[in-house]
Amino acid sequence: MRLSIDVHLDYAFPEPADVLLQIEAAALPDQRIESESLVIYSDNPIRAVAGEEGIGQRCWARADQRLMADYRAVITVERPVVNLAQLAPTPVRLLPPETVGYLLPSRYCESDRFEHFVRRQFAGLSGGALAVALIDWVRGALEYSSAATQLRGGALTTFAERRGVCRDYAHLLVALARAAEIPARCVAVYAPGVDPPDFHAAAELWLAGAWHLVDATGMANSADMVRVAVGRDATDIAFMTIFGTAFLFAQTVVVRRLDAQS
Amino acid sequence: MRLSIDVHLDYAFPEPADVLLQIEAAALPDQRIESESLVIYSDNPIRAVAGEEGIGQRCWARADQRLMADYRAVITVERPVVNLAQLAPTPVRLLPPETVGYLLPSRYCESDRFEHFVRRQFAGLSGGALAVALIDWVRGALEYSSAATQLRGGALTTFAERRGVCRDYAHLLVALARAAEIPARCVAVYAPGVDPPDFHAAAELWLAGAWHLVDATGMANSADMVRVAVGRDATDIAFMTIFGTAFLFAQTVVVRRLDAQS
Amino acid sequence: MRLSIDVHLDYAFPEPADVLLQIEAAALPDQRIESESLVIYSDNPIRAVAGEEGIGQRCWARADQRLMADYRAVITVERPVVNLAQLAPTPVRLLPPETVGYLLPSRYCESDRFEHFVRRQFAGLSGGALAVALIDWVRGALEYSSAATQLRGGALTTFAERRGVCRDYAHLLVALARAAEIPARCVAVYAPGVDPPDFHAAAELWLAGAWHLVDATGMANSADMVRVAVGRDATDIAFMTIFGTAFLFAQTVVVRRLDAQS
Amino acid sequence: MRLSIDVHLDYAFPEPADVLLQIEAAALPDQRIESESLVIYSDNPIRAVAGEEGIGQRCWARADQRLMADYRAVITVERPVVNLAQLAPTPVRLLPPETVGYLLPSRYCESDRFEHFVRRQFAGLSGGALAVALIDWVRGALEYSSAATQLRGGALTTFAERRGVCRDYAHLLVALARAAEIPARCVAVYAPGVDPPDFHAAAELWLAGAWHLVDATGMANSADMVRVAVGRDATDIAFMTIFGTAFLFAQTVVVRRLDAQS
Repeated sequence: MRLSIDVHLDYAFPEPADVLLQIEAAALPDQRIESESLVIYSDNPIRAVAGEEGIGQRCWARADQRLMADYRAVITVERPVVNLAQLAPTPVRLLPPETVGYLLPSRYCESDRFEHFVRRQFAGLSGGALAVALIDWVRGALEYSSAATQLRGGALTTFAERRGVCRDYAHLLVALARAAEIPARCVAVYAPGVDPPDFHAAAELWLAGAWHLVDATGMANSADMVRVAVGRDATDIAFMTIFGTAFLFAQTVVVRRLDAQS
Repeated sequence: MRLSIDVHLDYAFPEPADVLLQIEAAALPDQRIESESLVIYSDNPIRAVAGEEGIGQRCWARADQRLMADYRAVITVERPVVNLAQLAPTPVRLLPPETVGYLLPSRYCESDRFEHFVRRQFAGLSGGALAVALIDWVRGALEYSSAATQLRGGALTTFAERRGVCRDYAHLLVALARAAEIPARCVAVYAPGVDPPDFHAAAELWLAGAWHLVDATGMANSADMVRVAVGRDATDIAFMTIFGTAFLFAQTVVVRRLDAQS
Repeated sequence: MRLSIDVHLDYAFPEPADVLLQIEAAALPDQRIESESLVIYSDNPIRAVAGEEGIGQRCWARADQRLMADYRAVITVERPVVNLAQLAPTPVRLLPPETVGYLLPSRYCESDRFEHFVRRQFAGLSGGALAVALIDWVRGALEYSSAATQLRGGALTTFAERRGVCRDYAHLLVALARAAEIPARCVAVYAPGVDPPDFHAAAELWLAGAWHLVDATGMANSADMVRVAVGRDATDIAFMTIFGTAFLFAQTVVVRRLDAQS
Repeated sequence: MRLSIDVHLDYAFPEPADVLLQIEAAALPDQRIESESLVIYSDNPIRAVAGEEGIGQRCWARADQRLMADYRAVITVERPVVNLAQLAPTPVRLLPPETVGYLLPSRYCESDRFEHFVRRQFAGLSGGALAVALIDWVRGALEYSSAATQLRGGALTTFAERRGVCRDYAHLLVALARAAEIPARCVAVYAPGVDPPDFHAAAELWLAGAWHLVDATGMANSADMVRVAVGRDATDIAFMTIFGTAFLFAQTVVVRRLDAQS
């Protein structure tokens, strides 16, 4: 799968502010960057640092009055389709150290609240079969609704509200997976088919020795998502974190499938 | 049904404090007080005021070092069994004014969070049939567990935790009912069969022109509960509200079924 | 003080819904209604019921596609200026029964959280002097900011965020007052000088045998506010509670001081 | 400073469970491990993995009916006293990548809520002077109280409650520091003088190129704390995380200052 990504950001800043951008596709074995260009219009130097877990990178910029950025890339995704349901469980005590933090609750994934629910609702399941049951449950229980975005709540609220946008789906799936003793993290991705077109959030579940990408909303499938950043929840993977105040002028995210032969 | 109630409270107070007690059975058409005695051991005068909605009464006491109270009563409950499922719905705009407040969210019954869930989960149901579905759902979804009491959370937390004690059951049923446009309130009751024996909390749902007592835990049935107080949630119906600090010495609540002929 | 009030509401409803309006000035000894007109454009009958505490009234309407309402009134407010600071405290055990509920926490006034803070921060103060200190503290601690409205939080959040709109000011003052053992409730009011002009929320504190109106934002003073409704918090006093979904077309609230001689 | 540490844990498990222990002093340049012994009584193999940020280590154990552990160590702490107040600020865009995650909100450090408060309350301060002002503020605002432990809340709740135990102090300081654009993390430590003797939690603030240990409770000073683990908040640094249910039999933590010459 070849994808073209085209992002335009334009924000106004009443006072100078530091800004952390995470909008570049990460170079990873299963997603190859064919071409890439990031232009940040700023009089100040840009500083790039590695992202969480060494995946992708973050750019620090100093915004003075206005910050514009253009990102264009062509990415080839070659990610084998995995039948999650057949993956074996791993007892938590045998997990690799780098996954342990993804078993714990975070700001928007209050997994400690869901242990009893998961144990009862999904009794008898483990490993990939449990993961698939969790994904199906979230997809069935929630309704996609941008009306709920303003609430800025976490998985606990989404679990009751039963609706939300991509980040709410991701938070709830991640929280339930952690409560089920499956390491889970949030992933910022680009994907075609996201409606309305925007930055997108998905989840990664750790099963049978590897992270597996899942879009709980069902809008994207594992084979055509491009990872930008990973982290414990939306706080880690935000496309823009503003240390101050900003106003949106314009923002567009366009992701297109390219003909593989072209 | 004749019931005997025997309550003993004994608390220590490091500093003098005002205390609001709500432990007397309310005199109501469906629960007749045959005999009653409340003794509060205090050097200060006791002041009784009417309870919420004029149901039952509250006693103000001034606790100095120690507060002991003994309450004994014999009550005859004659409450017809109502088949809730057959009761007709009332559109909210036709509700009597005194029920409107019980449609709104309160401290521990965040009904505003559950509107979407209720609409989807119980689509097509209304009135008594909806009420019965809500009761059955709460009873099936929750597990009785005193481990959860320390959390002091509300319906939102209980909905995720899926376990709790009587007040949690009552809060969740009340929150869901309000979200379903059925007025609902919490009720402090005495009931035999509560295990462990203690003050008990139930719910009242307003259907077809009357309040109907429901114990969401299933430990008590409508015919043998004695109402003490009603209110929006646990804050209104607490058996003791302390305006200061207190330590428990002893507390016993014994409720027994008496032979009707004795 | 004579005030003219002019309100226009216009909402669209994708599906028929019941709506509870609370927009009429309450007839009370200290605010006399000289003239009044409420027109609700609806094919369905309107039903008026008494408001909380018998203050003001609520109108139930059935909204089908669209609901428009026009309210016009001229009110004379004759409310003596009270020097709150000199009012004596009342021990909670001597409070009248109808104020007890206003000592307890509610959905958006989590007064149980603030007891320790109030005890330490305002040690040595009681009665009116304490009330004035609480009002001054809230006014100094918060910054008026409509940016915070979308959060829909309660006093706990506002206490940390330190900014908000009129309802946030009212919630925080009410929560602190209850924690200080002063009965407190929220009040929907009309007042000139509210910027931007809108429905306004204030607080009432019970001191020395009476309720005293206070606008914690400082935008209005006690002598020129017209009460619409009272209640435990914003849930009780909302100008419109929609049992369904609605979209705003237009809404204007104009309150003017009239020349007393005119 | 030489310290002896002596820990004994004894827990019962109704069902077999995986347990993550973090109780060993970390080997670090400023705290040298002279002798150390960890004995975990278990029929199952123990597996050690690196802690967060590669600091210290975690032990996975499989608990079957009972888990006992004894940890004994002698540690020499040589940590220079730093005058925090004189440290220069670092703009966030110049921070090293490994500190960026510690600017973001976490489960119990809701730093996003405190930005406005910090900006107003500590206007004009930055770097070390700001850090010292935050520490002083937390120390003055909170009262040490084990009564509050059961609440298990985060910084938002502690900020209102104004009391708590060591973890609450640490959470609030960390949350305020992050809101002030100073990277901050929670640290599990051993320290003499903790009363009652127990596992202890402190904070680390990143200033002028290094992490600086601070005990917001004031019970321990920087020179005699031994780090066990670091992380975003209490979730990361818990001495024991149980993936199941356990009951406490016995737990003792004894930390003593040793004569440097002995």
